[in-house]
Amino acid sequence: MRGLLKGDRRSLARAISIVDDEGPDSHTILRQVFKKTGNARTLGFTGAGGVGKSSLIERVVPIFQELGYKIAIIAVDPTSPITGGAILGDRVRMQTIMDDQKVFVRSLASRGAIGGISKSVRNVIRLLDAAGYTLVIVESVGAGQVDVQISEVVNLTVVVFSPQSGDSIQAIKAGLTEIGDMYVINKGDLEGSTSLYNSIVDLIGNTPRKPSIMKASAKSGKGVKEVAINLDKLLRLKGYHRTDLEKKILEAELKDMVLNKVEGKISAMLREDNRYRIIVEKILNKELDPYLAADQLEAAILR
Amino acid sequence: MRGLLKGDRRSLARAISIVDDEGPDSHTILRQVFKKTGNARTLGFTGAGGVGKSSLIERVVPIFQELGYKIAIIAVDPTSPITGGAILGDRVRMQTIMDDQKVFVRSLASRGAIGGISKSVRNVIRLLDAAGYTLVIVESVGAGQVDVQISEVVNLTVVVFSPQSGDSIQAIKAGLTEIGDMYVINKGDLEGSTSLYNSIVDLIGNTPRKPSIMKASAKSGKGVKEVAINLDKLLRLKGYHRTDLEKKILEAELKDMVLNKVEGKISAMLREDNRYRIIVEKILNKELDPYLAADQLEAAILR
Repeated sequence: MRGLLKGDRRSLARAISIVDDEGPDSHTILRQVFKKTGNARTLGFTGAGGVGKSSLIERVVPIFQELGYKIAIIAVDPTSPITGGAILGDRVRMQTIMDDQKVFVRSLASRGAIGGISKSVRNVIRLLDAAGYTLVIVESVGAGQVDVQISEVVNLTVVVFSPQSGDSIQAIKAGLTEIGDMYVINKGDLEGSTSLYNSIVDLIGNTPRKPSIMKASAKSGKGVKEVAINLDKLLRLKGYHRTDLEKKILEAELKDMVLNKVEGKISAMLREDNRYRIIVEKILNKELDPYLAADQLEAAILR
Repeated sequence: MRGLLKGDRRSLARAISIVDDEGPDSHTILRQVFKKTGNARTLGFTGAGGVGKSSLIERVVPIFQELGYKIAIIAVDPTSPITGGAILGDRVRMQTIMDDQKVFVRSLASRGAIGGISKSVRNVIRLLDAAGYTLVIVESVGAGQVDVQISEVVNLTVVVFSPQSGDSIQAIKAGLTEIGDMYVINKGDLEGSTSLYNSIVDLIGNTPRKPSIMKASAKSGKGVKEVAINLDKLLRLKGYHRTDLEKKILEAELKDMVLNKVEGKISAMLREDNRYRIIVEKILNKELDPYLAADQLEAAILR
């Protein structure tokens, strides 16, 4: 713990593993660390595969460093072993580049539990915060629900598009147009980027959130500095730090934690308690309906 | 209710609206209907936008009707008002075609609550089942989590791909390769369909589920009959009806229902109970940590 608070990378990596695996000391570590948190600001980067999220992050990192941030990156990968393999190469590349720049990089796998990934990300952000990192960038895969969950635990969400491969339509379907505080059209030098820009402005420029919509090219570097500086400005705005947003994030966290415990309790009951096995059998035989059974189950576990 | 059980479409439509809006009579209707259920089999169709799910469904419907099924379709649309508009045209087209064929079509919007869409779909399937439909097809948008949830409430899931627009990679990211009992490469006459077929066989042909992988063309009709007949066979297999699968679906439903109630209770506590407002303030001021607070909250609501 003392190592972690001093910013020692190995202590930090160990603490993250314990917390992410929910090891026996996880609770203790998180409770000890909590009072040392509150300095880090957090940025989510999301978007479909191939739009260039990692390249864009690699470009903005040195600019943020010049602005004085100490940076850590959490890369959220899908749990799937199939996809895992596809993403691994990207990760290795990012790790190498970031090591040179003294950026701490950590991959996390998304989980099945309610708010599973939000929980991991939230807890790892706290560890990084306590270890002295002042900007935590969370990169996620652009696969629907996971991104929405992550957008709820970071201060700002950047959604990345590219003019290739019809990503915009996919992204709309996946609900990505509703979670961004900033939209970046990457590969802004490619054909189709202006029409993509225009259609995104049409779609979301006037939503209540009034997100920034910018063009950039991670490849040439064009527009990247503007993206970073704009993000820095937004991060410094009071509305994105503490206050109402933090309160909402915290209430969601409390709810997730309690619901996870309740879920564990119900699973155990269904698995181990003979009374509930009988209830399930009765429903299958149409002797009881699931709606009444749920009422009974609720009465049995809630005060 | 009597109208619904006799198969009257207007009574059915009304009951679906009440149940979907969770109106005051919702619980009563579902409880009354439950004992009349158990005959319908259910098929999910999912895949990215533009792969031709609706066209494929329109093609298989008459074949299933010849096989003796009475068919209803549930179209699950994203909640987003942006996407809603884009999909509307498709729905109107399907509705018109299906009306001619005496197929009952109903759109449902996906929801924010835990298992929100599974719950709606499950309940609407029961109403359709009680109204005499013997095959319920659920079409969803191919947007990650929603499809996974739907695959857990239907007997069989068909994932549709097309060789256009790099869908396969998107689909892999979205986890679609893990939920299918059958994979159909639609637009099988287009260039790239054979290589897409081969890569899907490579990726998932040998997963434990051993899904069928088939080529078809909704446009020309080629391969469509084989798809329908294969699905009919699978639906008749004992493993896909009642038994373990039904039990798992039911346990998940019970859990969802109880968790939804618990979530409502926690939200109300956080919103209305002064004690919890104080807890949140204390955490924001680092006087209390969220992990201890969650334990306290849990103790306050659970027996």
